[in-house]
Amino acid sequence: MGYDEIYKLALERGFFSPSCEIYSDFQAGFWEYGPIGVSLRNNYVNLWRRELVRRDGMTEIDGTQIMSKNVFVASGHLGSFADPIVVCTQCGTTVRADRMISERVGGSLPEGLPTEEYDALIAKHDLKCTNCKGDYGKVRKFNMMFRVGIGPKDDDAYLRPETCQSIFVDAPRLFKTMRLKLPIGFAQFGKSFRNEIAPRQSLIRLREFYQAEIEVFFNPKTANNLAKFQEIKHVKLPIQKADGNFAEITAEEAANRKIVPNQLVAYYLAILIEFYAKTGIDIKKVRFRELNAEDRAFYALAAFDFEVQTSLGWMELVACNYRSDYDMGRHAKISNHDLTILDGEEKVIPHIFEISMGIDRSIYCVLEHSYAKENEREVLRIKPYLAPIMAGIFPLVSKEGLPEKAQQIFDSLKKEFAVFYDESGSIGRRYRRQDEIGTPVGVTVDFDTMKDNTVTVRDRDSMSQKRIKVEEIRSYLSSLLQIYSES
Amino acid sequence: MGYDEIYKLALERGFFSPSCEIYSDFQAGFWEYGPIGVSLRNNYVNLWRRELVRRDGMTEIDGTQIMSKNVFVASGHLGSFADPIVVCTQCGTTVRADRMISERVGGSLPEGLPTEEYDALIAKHDLKCTNCKGDYGKVRKFNMMFRVGIGPKDDDAYLRPETCQSIFVDAPRLFKTMRLKLPIGFAQFGKSFRNEIAPRQSLIRLREFYQAEIEVFFNPKTANNLAKFQEIKHVKLPIQKADGNFAEITAEEAANRKIVPNQLVAYYLAILIEFYAKTGIDIKKVRFRELNAEDRAFYALAAFDFEVQTSLGWMELVACNYRSDYDMGRHAKISNHDLTILDGEEKVIPHIFEISMGIDRSIYCVLEHSYAKENEREVLRIKPYLAPIMAGIFPLVSKEGLPEKAQQIFDSLKKEFAVFYDESGSIGRRYRRQDEIGTPVGVTVDFDTMKDNTVTVRDRDSMSQKRIKVEEIRSYLSSLLQIYSES
Repeated sequence: MGYDEIYKLALERGFFSPSCEIYSDFQAGFWEYGPIGVSLRNNYVNLWRRELVRRDGMTEIDGTQIMSKNVFVASGHLGSFADPIVVCTQCGTTVRADRMISERVGGSLPEGLPTEEYDALIAKHDLKCTNCKGDYGKVRKFNMMFRVGIGPKDDDAYLRPETCQSIFVDAPRLFKTMRLKLPIGFAQFGKSFRNEIAPRQSLIRLREFYQAEIEVFFNPKTANNLAKFQEIKHVKLPIQKADGNFAEITAEEAANRKIVPNQLVAYYLAILIEFYAKTGIDIKKVRFRELNAEDRAFYALAAFDFEVQTSLGWMELVACNYRSDYDMGRHAKISNHDLTILDGEEKVIPHIFEISMGIDRSIYCVLEHSYAKENEREVLRIKPYLAPIMAGIFPLVSKEGLPEKAQQIFDSLKKEFAVFYDESGSIGRRYRRQDEIGTPVGVTVDFDTMKDNTVTVRDRDSMSQKRIKVEEIRSYLSSLLQIYSES
Repeated sequence: MGYDEIYKLALERGFFSPSCEIYSDFQAGFWEYGPIGVSLRNNYVNLWRRELVRRDGMTEIDGTQIMSKNVFVASGHLGSFADPIVVCTQCGTTVRADRMISERVGGSLPEGLPTEEYDALIAKHDLKCTNCKGDYGKVRKFNMMFRVGIGPKDDDAYLRPETCQSIFVDAPRLFKTMRLKLPIGFAQFGKSFRNEIAPRQSLIRLREFYQAEIEVFFNPKTANNLAKFQEIKHVKLPIQKADGNFAEITAEEAANRKIVPNQLVAYYLAILIEFYAKTGIDIKKVRFRELNAEDRAFYALAAFDFEVQTSLGWMELVACNYRSDYDMGRHAKISNHDLTILDGEEKVIPHIFEISMGIDRSIYCVLEHSYAKENEREVLRIKPYLAPIMAGIFPLVSKEGLPEKAQQIFDSLKKEFAVFYDESGSIGRRYRRQDEIGTPVGVTVDFDTMKDNTVTVRDRDSMSQKRIKVEEIRSYLSSLLQIYSES
């Protein structure tokens, strides 16, 4: 399925929609989750928590979104988290210079060129404003952080452009109070904010977005001596190397042949791909794309983008960065605190491997990879543990006590399971409406229910039906969610 | 227990801590949740979702935190969401004028006086700066919204000061796409932001904070005709009336005697108090305090603050406001959209009853009401379904295979339950450490375990122990969480 179908489904069925849409003064890049989207997103984050955070024994925190200016002096965002922009001198249209140039000239430009080089390219190719044919002004850098003024003196602070900074500044307290030892993963789910020049395609490029970031702190000397590596050494990693070659190799081979820097990195790439397999994303359509030195941050020793094939092309869902000791070294320097950690007898500035996941994009990909148009219906073949609604509860007809009985069943389930009561329209139409949003089970109350206290349960994927007792509905739904524990 | 004990526990055991604490440039009013706090907060929000949102069949959304300027033109925040502040002309210290005056003169001032009246009071009582004895300047209004500039043109937008505005602007789409009918509750959990002049006492008054807001849309003509009122009509509501009288009466009496405006309001106050009973807050120490006309918003037809008695005095956890048709009327006017809803044959601008819950303060109260100092230990007697850690897993000693066996049990449980592995220190010390953070169960692997595959399980509250089989641990933990379903 393509972007347009998912977009239409999202708007019509309560997955997501534009923020403040009744007001014309609002900007692009802000989207809300509707009721079906909230449920899917919560289930997705719970899966992340279960299959990455808890699986690995990580430590989860939740930091503030507004952070101190000095945090971003240390991180480098205040100095260099900027896009090159250029404004039309005639109509005022503003565009990202690098994107505009590469789209019109072809090829991709390395990130972070000096502004003069963009000016030179605009002059060389005689590029004019696409809106009015006017001349562009000089390219300038535009910092993508949102500034916030605190207190009556309006002191500088910023909305964090990535959640990980909260982890870096909290780590010293956590090592002490939680009695942690290297290596240890820290995890955080929350909002980040970037003042994008060209937000686009709903959840794909947002100004306010959800991230789930994991920062693994470790001593590089022991990164090839990881007991839990045994668990995943046979997991296959599809790696698109920076030299252009593609390799689908086991985690063990990847570490041994130095295709990834060490066992620790291979381990986290492996558990990440195991996690995505559980989201229902087609694992034959994913890859780790290695970034070359020019495309990764100057301090990164290695970087792999986890990408998924979609109707919009390869889409980056997770940035996996080996960030060296840059983060803790910088924060130690700017905060003037000793941030070394004792690892056995050795004091180390921890190295960090980051797994920075975009939640909104991941949700989009789950939808695109789950959606199917069949002859007579559209169906979202989503995993039951991610399904926004677990079961629809339907009286076959709206008379002779069937609605009351169905409502009673609904009430007995509603706290424990996401269930939806519906009595309007034909039963076939009600099944179809639930198929569209991925509801795994339809529970129908009919005339036999009134005699023998049984209902039909219909399976979303096979459309087959069987009769079970009313008292068995709870365990039937639980057993579908059990897939979770077994897989 | 008092604030100081909870504060100390929070910092030492990973409940909460100041944001950006390694940097001296940061401001007060920003606090993070540590690992234990995140788990407690998530459990609390799940309880809210279960016992209020799902219980009542509400529709949950998740809107953006940055919102359009016109939203706050409509809501009135842009014009009047301001505190009176006054700056010392000598040392520059800034204080909230109303608080400073009432603290020093005694008595409480009505909110929202004209600034000249505060100036007059300062002159009358000859109030000088408490810091340097200098003269105060003129009182001015300080808007508490944080402004955010969007895009290269730096267009005005604001961080929402309350989550409910997202509900108001999304409601028109939700009524259409979700096929909703009046009355219907909308719910949202998320961050809000207020540029407080005097943030204080960690989670009690924050600049960035979590709210869980419920906005019930209804037709006032049918607010006394509510089928589900029968469910809760015998629930007791402790009401501190604006006239000074206290009444502990049933929801039915409250509605009949017009102590609350109608059955719908009485119903929601009743399910709110039932919810708080499940959090473990001592329900004998709560009240609904009725606000008189001067203290509530000008558009509110009635308002009750849900307050809890704490070591810091009565603390407001939830504002319950009957907001009339103000919100949807204003948004209709400013957005120039028809926001009426069809109720049967009648077009209505819905009335709204709001249940605006402060999450951070609620968490604080749960901690304070759960914490106890006993002879030999400190213990957090928190409900198992709120407990940050469900079970500690301990090898009795660190030898003869006990740690490996305990680790194996830990691994088999860690995805499904929040469990904690600990092998350091005496077993008594390890129990105490878990008592402090409210872990209901201690699972100990000893020498008998190696022979017969049984463990001891220790109960936090009674400190009694019994032996169960390793295969039974999962169902033992599940049964403790079942309290949830039964209550």
